[in-house]
Amino acid sequence: MTEQKTDIAFVLYENMTALDLVGPYEVLSAVPSATGHFVAATREPVRADNGLTVQPTTTFAELTRPGIVVVPGGSGWRNALEARDLIGWLAAVHPTTSWTTSVCTGSTLLAKAGVLAGRTATTHWACRDVLAGLGVEVSTDRVVFDGDVVSAAGVSAGIDMALRLVARVWGEEAAQRITLGLEYDPQPPFDTGSPDKAPAEMVTALHAAVNAL
Amino acid sequence: MTEQKTDIAFVLYENMTALDLVGPYEVLSAVPSATGHFVAATREPVRADNGLTVQPTTTFAELTRPGIVVVPGGSGWRNALEARDLIGWLAAVHPTTSWTTSVCTGSTLLAKAGVLAGRTATTHWACRDVLAGLGVEVSTDRVVFDGDVVSAAGVSAGIDMALRLVARVWGEEAAQRITLGLEYDPQPPFDTGSPDKAPAEMVTALHAAVNAL
Repeated sequence: MTEQKTDIAFVLYENMTALDLVGPYEVLSAVPSATGHFVAATREPVRADNGLTVQPTTTFAELTRPGIVVVPGGSGWRNALEARDLIGWLAAVHPTTSWTTSVCTGSTLLAKAGVLAGRTATTHWACRDVLAGLGVEVSTDRVVFDGDVVSAAGVSAGIDMALRLVARVWGEEAAQRITLGLEYDPQPPFDTGSPDKAPAEMVTALHAAVNAL
Repeated sequence: MTEQKTDIAFVLYENMTALDLVGPYEVLSAVPSATGHFVAATREPVRADNGLTVQPTTTFAELTRPGIVVVPGGSGWRNALEARDLIGWLAAVHPTTSWTTSVCTGSTLLAKAGVLAGRTATTHWACRDVLAGLGVEVSTDRVVFDGDVVSAAGVSAGIDMALRLVARVWGEEAAQRITLGLEYDPQPPFDTGSPDKAPAEMVTALHAAVNAL
């Protein structure tokens, strides 16, 4: 294995969901040969949708050849669809990435950038119709690999996605070690984490609330 | 139920682990009647141990009556043990919190502040001996409630802890709704997330690496 560092771009935009980004970040930044970058339109701090404000370390203009890109979702995804700098950057860098990835509604941004043309991808369960409306074949799987594009379902699915990506790129032992380091042995107290398992009224109400954002 | 807002303090310090904080933050900030605050010694940006830099919204001097406190762990925990402002603040606010909580090695800071005297708590699996050395009865459970103190095991356990806390404070339906919203239906690709399940050599090596930090 060469010692060449992999530049990983964690994309920031206003009203992204912090956990969409920080889940994969914590997994991928545990890889010794990876270097993480937090990239945004400018170096101004970026506020996530529940108030956490994070500091970019670089800009779209400066980071032009990332090896891996991670695009979070969040309540700001509709505005982000219209952000030409962000969408243009995704379209520009994707041809030279090893892996272009998304979490939650981040896949809508990949779709807008043309990255998902002819591909299958996943997204937050409440936004599957939106992703389909952007011309993407939508999967209900939690993590979807399609060529060099990887997408994860809602929010917490980014952790599973990143571990599977580490296994593909750096090997299963690396992914197992990170799983142990993050003590990722989840014990969800409620089995309502997917629309197939939660009460139907809860699914209907949350679907309406998400789409009213 | 009254409409009184609960002030939740997410504690920041240098070289904390971002996911320790952002897991509970994403869960707890989904509660409509909660207000999140990111509290640190000063308002200077704080760098987490893998490079994510976040912005405090308040300081220890300003936030004196939080209802809930969340203390993350991270590779900076040893330095944080000696941070008088942080430890002093934990000791000062705990008597008036409804809940004082920790994730990962954050429990060592609660111990240093006297919050865990005579209590049982958990921590990252590789630091159980450290917590025991601080006079705490150590549990190997993933989440431990002891009176008004709640502790979580390593990093990702903060998500499970926060969901259980939401259920206790705001009811099970609220916690189930957040579980659905975060699509928290984990599918870990590797079953190596606890020292009981991972290969023994991997556990030994990671334990040594963590304790050499």
